[in-house]
Amino acid sequence: MSHDSLELRSTITADAQLRLELVPVTLPDPGPGQLLVRIEAAPVNPSDLGLLFGPADLSALEQGGTAEAPVLTAPVPQGAMAAMRARIDQSMPVGNEGAGTVIAAGPDQTDLIGRRVAMMGGAMYATHRLIDARDALPLPEGAEAEAGAALFVNPLTALGFVETMRAQGHTAMVHAPAASNLGQMLVRICRDDGIGLVNIVRSAEQAAMLRDLGATHVVDSSTDSFRADLEQAIAETGATLSFDAIGGGETTSIILNAMEAVAARSMDRYDRYGSGTFKQGYIYGALDTGPSVLRRGFGFSWQIGGWLLFQQLQRLDPAVVEAMRARVAREMTTTFASAYTARVSLAETLSPDTARAMNRKATGAKYLIRP
Amino acid sequence: MSHDSLELRSTITADAQLRLELVPVTLPDPGPGQLLVRIEAAPVNPSDLGLLFGPADLSALEQGGTAEAPVLTAPVPQGAMAAMRARIDQSMPVGNEGAGTVIAAGPDQTDLIGRRVAMMGGAMYATHRLIDARDALPLPEGAEAEAGAALFVNPLTALGFVETMRAQGHTAMVHAPAASNLGQMLVRICRDDGIGLVNIVRSAEQAAMLRDLGATHVVDSSTDSFRADLEQAIAETGATLSFDAIGGGETTSIILNAMEAVAARSMDRYDRYGSGTFKQGYIYGALDTGPSVLRRGFGFSWQIGGWLLFQQLQRLDPAVVEAMRARVAREMTTTFASAYTARVSLAETLSPDTARAMNRKATGAKYLIRP
Repeated sequence: MSHDSLELRSTITADAQLRLELVPVTLPDPGPGQLLVRIEAAPVNPSDLGLLFGPADLSALEQGGTAEAPVLTAPVPQGAMAAMRARIDQSMPVGNEGAGTVIAAGPDQTDLIGRRVAMMGGAMYATHRLIDARDALPLPEGAEAEAGAALFVNPLTALGFVETMRAQGHTAMVHAPAASNLGQMLVRICRDDGIGLVNIVRSAEQAAMLRDLGATHVVDSSTDSFRADLEQAIAETGATLSFDAIGGGETTSIILNAMEAVAARSMDRYDRYGSGTFKQGYIYGALDTGPSVLRRGFGFSWQIGGWLLFQQLQRLDPAVVEAMRARVAREMTTTFASAYTARVSLAETLSPDTARAMNRKATGAKYLIRP
Repeated sequence: MSHDSLELRSTITADAQLRLELVPVTLPDPGPGQLLVRIEAAPVNPSDLGLLFGPADLSALEQGGTAEAPVLTAPVPQGAMAAMRARIDQSMPVGNEGAGTVIAAGPDQTDLIGRRVAMMGGAMYATHRLIDARDALPLPEGAEAEAGAALFVNPLTALGFVETMRAQGHTAMVHAPAASNLGQMLVRICRDDGIGLVNIVRSAEQAAMLRDLGATHVVDSSTDSFRADLEQAIAETGATLSFDAIGGGETTSIILNAMEAVAARSMDRYDRYGSGTFKQGYIYGALDTGPSVLRRGFGFSWQIGGWLLFQQLQRLDPAVVEAMRARVAREMTTTFASAYTARVSLAETLSPDTARAMNRKATGAKYLIRP
């Protein structure tokens, strides 16, 4: 027996067009170790946007096709095509994670039929997904699909920050922008585990929201006292590590300069090469895809690097990863709860207004696809 | 008995003036383990310029004092004063390294009297230096002071690059700008040791000069084919590590993007997070003190950091450092020979034209102070 599914696909064509459409696919019966899942909820994470929209100019989106089978197209600037070389004319499924109900299973997995599971592994913007059982996390009986939709990317990233901090000998960290779903999880983890965390937000409302969650150090980049407040929070926590999802602009540079200013306060004499305090900045997202600008007022004892969940998980002890997953399952409705501002169907995703809104990357605007 | 010396001193005053002058000091007799050296040659390295001139506006230099005791002054822009806080109104001696003849020694070091030594440790722009014998390297009989003046900073930096490469599991590296005295040493080391080295230079003349020294891979950033040439050289050497003394601008960004483009050639499918090939860029100088600009087209598997000789030497096994020093002494007139374009006295250093020329940081213009 085979199973019909509809998958949202993203293609960048050789003639520089982005094409988004729903493609009917036929999935085989699950084999040993496999599950067939009817997808009920999948979040649109910032990490999905690159594959979904590429560098297309979404202000020029056009809708075509039919009401049942809509097609969205948009031009890709010629200058951005070189970086797309490896995906040209490939119809790519999208969606890093999601949750749904198991409707068929391999002969060794039949006890999971009817069970709701959370999943990671791509191609989640679809009606159905054939998946290895080891990439699925069975949810507690009665768990809502929405509560299980985002239990991998953000929760494991937040816990991964803590593991990176410990592995590299830091004792506190700075996070920007901190009001995201991920940022809220990090606030709860650090609150519960007694870890110093400096949260950089972009408005007074976001600051109040994080304080309500139990954040101790919140600094607002929209205020005149931002740099002084940041230095003070770094001095109070001893943070020498930062995680920046913005990427473009000066965020990491500002954080490292503040760390250096704090370190310089305890130097007993001038050193033209800066302090010996080692400062590590990680860029883990690209909400701003523009260039990162480093004003190197932070001496020579620093590193800035990329941080990617999949690579980091591979570096960790498997027992640590297993403990992280167990904590996520245990605290799925508390520490790792996500909030959504809009819910759309697969077909609704393919409207110009929805697509543009998803791509806006505003903290606090979060889409959930319900196929 | 005591000894008269003249030291070149740099002061940044609270009213935002740079002041350079020769200050008479009295040095005590050397104690146990110490040497008193009459300095005969000291190079002006790029790493000396920050302490010497700070952020002063050298276009507004003014000469005062007398012919025997000249004083140079220049205004420091107000915006640059905050970073100078730790050195305000301190009269700071300058000069990282030099060579001279031992004229007095502690009771346990008398066999070195009359011997020429190379030294590191600051305050070398002076007529005399009291120094710990362990910071001095006795030169072979008959060695010229000029040949021993620059046996620490550049030689140990070039050898340090190789040690960093080995310690971090890279097998080849990129260096920019490669035509400096340091770059020439690195060419000779890599030629002799069979290490892949991609040299980035800024003119055809520099490219020819490095090829004459035995460089295999030289790419000229002034040509239209620079990016393609860089990719090809990286592909041929397998370089995943770079050292950048420019700091400001896009040098390291261009190198890492070229490494990523090479890595992407061997990827069998598109990955929106980039290749898994780890790329490390080090910034070890600031010939351009402007911001570093990172166009992050190189995925998430990268780090960029500061590289400072003194910190790196402390991380190495002392036996490795001893072997580096021994090699420098052995090959001082070959691998580690420096070339100078101008020789000036201490007093001549304090003329506006000389100061500006020293600060120009042009590859190929290299000053030696002969007190």
